[in-house]
Amino acid sequence: MPRYTKTDFPVSQVRRFIEPGPIVLVSSAHRGKTNIMTMGWHMIMEFEPSLIGCYIWNANHSFEMIRKSKQCVINVPTADLAAKVVGIGNSSGRDIDKFAEFGLTATAGTEVSAPLIEQCYANFECRLVDSSLIRKYSLFVLEVVKAHVATKPKYPKTIHYRGDGEFMISGTETRKYRKLFKPQML
Amino acid sequence: MPRYTKTDFPVSQVRRFIEPGPIVLVSSAHRGKTNIMTMGWHMIMEFEPSLIGCYIWNANHSFEMIRKSKQCVINVPTADLAAKVVGIGNSSGRDIDKFAEFGLTATAGTEVSAPLIEQCYANFECRLVDSSLIRKYSLFVLEVVKAHVATKPKYPKTIHYRGDGEFMISGTETRKYRKLFKPQML
Repeated sequence: MPRYTKTDFPVSQVRRFIEPGPIVLVSSAHRGKTNIMTMGWHMIMEFEPSLIGCYIWNANHSFEMIRKSKQCVINVPTADLAAKVVGIGNSSGRDIDKFAEFGLTATAGTEVSAPLIEQCYANFECRLVDSSLIRKYSLFVLEVVKAHVATKPKYPKTIHYRGDGEFMISGTETRKYRKLFKPQML
Repeated sequence: MPRYTKTDFPVSQVRRFIEPGPIVLVSSAHRGKTNIMTMGWHMIMEFEPSLIGCYIWNANHSFEMIRKSKQCVINVPTADLAAKVVGIGNSSGRDIDKFAEFGLTATAGTEVSAPLIEQCYANFECRLVDSSLIRKYSLFVLEVVKAHVATKPKYPKTIHYRGDGEFMISGTETRKYRKLFKPQML
């Protein structure tokens, strides 16, 4: 499993790791229990404050844990963890302790009680700031209040879901078009 | 520029092309004018009906065109179009005709009046089904009512934004974990 050295990262810039569309792991804690879920439906909604919208199905064990504790951590896994990501997404925290079952390490955050997953490339501590869209759309509006990002590699090999059990692994080809951007559009 | 042969595609399955997180082009039409915008903030919100949530900034020329016409097309471009995607995102439909300026072909859809971009890998005709979140979050809830997808390649080389003018091009490495999935989770 990967071992990353991490540093504090500006919360307004977490979009750099969320916009490319990786599958993420969401960790939570409530009443002395922790859990992890695999999540593919999310989007940046604002960068200052740093808001991320997440679809969490109400059948997920994490649904009530996050709704009630009003916090969670969004963790960005890399390709080394792909089989675990699938296993986590196809089991329930009702039946197992996912940190133990998948050999992942829970570490303490600084702003929330939910645990960070040490083996992930990045960890974004989040607070639930708007629960008004949960009932209609299962949409949790989260604010990233603290971000921890690996110091290297610059471009993590993230995992992107294509449906039907297939994943695309983030490409190594990078295109730079900085000069074609208006400064405020970067 | 790419030339694709397309076929009808089940709208409930467009998530296969949206979940990996590509940059998309959104085309619209209103009062005899068309426009195109580059969009990176979007998420699947449901697959039956097929709902996609999109952040469209109110400073975008497309904002009022889509809000008023209540429809648009989400087009999925591939790496061949990357420089055009950047150009479209850094210019305004107030000043130019983007189809003409970027040499793209507008073709007619079957369910909406907004034009499809022929050179894109996939075209999803959308209706605005919920405008109640536009004011607070610039969030347009769209329903895909018709989908057109290229018959090949199976895995398009999509473009994923990393911020700061840099893009990741979809990787060629695919991981298949179908057997680890519960059937209802695929």
